[in-house]
Amino acid sequence: MKITKPTLLLDKKRCLANIEKLVHKAERNQLNLRPHFKTHQAHEVGAWFRDFGIKKIATSSLSMAHYFAQDGWEDILVAFPTNILEIDTINELANSIRLGLLVQSIEVLDFLKTALKHPVDAYIEIDLGYGRTGIQSTDTATLDSLIDAMQGSHLTFKGFIGHAGHSYNAKGFDAIKAVHNEALSHVANVYKHYHNNHPNLEISIGDTPTCSTMSGFGYATELRPGNFVFYDLVQTHIGSCNINEIAVAVACPIVAMHPERHEVILYGGGVHFSKDVYHDDTYGKCYGIAVADDGNSWSTPIPNTYLRSISQEHGVLKCNPEFFEHYKIGDVVKILPVHSCMTADLLKVIYTTDEQKITMMSTH
Amino acid sequence: MKITKPTLLLDKKRCLANIEKLVHKAERNQLNLRPHFKTHQAHEVGAWFRDFGIKKIATSSLSMAHYFAQDGWEDILVAFPTNILEIDTINELANSIRLGLLVQSIEVLDFLKTALKHPVDAYIEIDLGYGRTGIQSTDTATLDSLIDAMQGSHLTFKGFIGHAGHSYNAKGFDAIKAVHNEALSHVANVYKHYHNNHPNLEISIGDTPTCSTMSGFGYATELRPGNFVFYDLVQTHIGSCNINEIAVAVACPIVAMHPERHEVILYGGGVHFSKDVYHDDTYGKCYGIAVADDGNSWSTPIPNTYLRSISQEHGVLKCNPEFFEHYKIGDVVKILPVHSCMTADLLKVIYTTDEQKITMMSTH
Repeated sequence: MKITKPTLLLDKKRCLANIEKLVHKAERNQLNLRPHFKTHQAHEVGAWFRDFGIKKIATSSLSMAHYFAQDGWEDILVAFPTNILEIDTINELANSIRLGLLVQSIEVLDFLKTALKHPVDAYIEIDLGYGRTGIQSTDTATLDSLIDAMQGSHLTFKGFIGHAGHSYNAKGFDAIKAVHNEALSHVANVYKHYHNNHPNLEISIGDTPTCSTMSGFGYATELRPGNFVFYDLVQTHIGSCNINEIAVAVACPIVAMHPERHEVILYGGGVHFSKDVYHDDTYGKCYGIAVADDGNSWSTPIPNTYLRSISQEHGVLKCNPEFFEHYKIGDVVKILPVHSCMTADLLKVIYTTDEQKITMMSTH
Repeated sequence: MKITKPTLLLDKKRCLANIEKLVHKAERNQLNLRPHFKTHQAHEVGAWFRDFGIKKIATSSLSMAHYFAQDGWEDILVAFPTNILEIDTINELANSIRLGLLVQSIEVLDFLKTALKHPVDAYIEIDLGYGRTGIQSTDTATLDSLIDAMQGSHLTFKGFIGHAGHSYNAKGFDAIKAVHNEALSHVANVYKHYHNNHPNLEISIGDTPTCSTMSGFGYATELRPGNFVFYDLVQTHIGSCNINEIAVAVACPIVAMHPERHEVILYGGGVHFSKDVYHDDTYGKCYGIAVADDGNSWSTPIPNTYLRSISQEHGVLKCNPEFFEHYKIGDVVKILPVHSCMTADLLKVIYTTDEQKITMMSTH
């Protein structure tokens, strides 16, 4: 294919290896794997999961659940606090697939009890220590009241869900382990309190850092990571993956060269990568790392060559001096993204190493 | 209109006032106003500029130039280093409109001399002190060689272009003034050296902070700001505008409430706002500020109520205690964005206060 603009490339081999690794980890731990599809947002990539036997998925919005239901997915958990304003979509989905919804307040529950027209699976969100959403795992009064209130409604209590998103602030195995242990203590709290009365209790957890690196998952029954399908520089920084497991790169044309200050201007900025940034151990503030070209894919990082800043369409690539011997204006440089979920969401079209063009879900 | 998901709202009255203010400033200073259309990216908003007599525009990509050419704009400057890989689009545009291109290297110029099939206006980019792109204003050897090399080609040298993007790091009038004075010294350098031989020399400058606040523009002939059409929190922070001049807000449903920690979870995250952040004088790290509802528009900020963090779809709104007396789950909160260019680019659809639905340029 001929690249003329910033283009999202997907190394299918790496992606399939990332999927396979998690599938095997879930199998070894006798856990269900319910991959979160927010990162790739594409029917075609979803189909690769299906080839591994995956039947249950998670999404981050009702729109995304709708998109995947259209492709034949029949068990979808919307891993986001239920947005009652989208009750029409909820009822449409509940009528056609097995729909899982998050509940964490009596207000939402009361609304759903009246407005739901079809059965749904209800999961109560608990806070695994992240402090974003969810009920405290020890607040059994609130948890009990929610479970009780589901009686005689279209809501069937299935279990608990949590997201240890603070693993994204961890760096290295020990720090991830600490977050994981904290999360598992909350999982144990609800398991011990509820499994007697609910023998089929499901407990769904799973951010990419802990799912990628940890080996025991306590009383959890399900893993629900998303980003691992592509990985990115944030995940290498945390320690979730090696840099050669990152399955996506953005191909960016060189539009200007400034050898005197060891910088190159790429067509590739915030509207392509997002403005997500991380602090690299070597480079400091980093918006992306350049990798050596390798046909339709790429190989290892080009030494000392990274995006030091981006604006709307410009990327400023800091380069090693030899870079200028190998690249010229009009060449394309492949850049590993900082946060693949955001980058894919912006670019919306994926070109695979075997030259398949994949169009992601449209937002509007 | 019924809002059910994160939705970009545009207060048309504020937007028209922002446009009018710049139109009058350009008139007072006898400067051409060539608004940059990267922020709104919409035919309909472009038409509002047309109503003020605007005939020349700037875009940040050839794709965007193509989009506006389709709507009848006949003089478009692509204010981005020319991407030679898009030569087909360049030739298509050059054949149908007055196309302005940026040139800052002999390599690009040599390519265009061979590949161009139709006349284009050539602008040489100079560095106004920002250090991103452009040739030093004192490097007349390079500037001369570029101008000379255009002889006998489809490229007509029109003048210079620059972007003082470091004004975005300024805060307050004096700091913006310092950036502006530096930029004008570079403008003066090229003016003094080239105006004798090029009596119709154009010099195009204009970032939103300096265009909004400064009153003299030295030897510049053209202003080229973009963000001012909507403004945003970054611009209020810099001092470019008042908070009541911000013309866009994102309406976000409340999906969870945590009164015990004075926080509310909004459906509205990085895929809606972008991850752009600024350090607010009062709140510190801030991803958006909540404003009081006012029919299809909004009024002043709700005290002490701002987005303290966002993830892919979640926004965590820190609230004042009284917030919980007025809002409940399923209500919609309007949030002023940190960076309107990025937010609009993500949301792609704009609803105006007079209930017009505007679809922006599609990226793919």
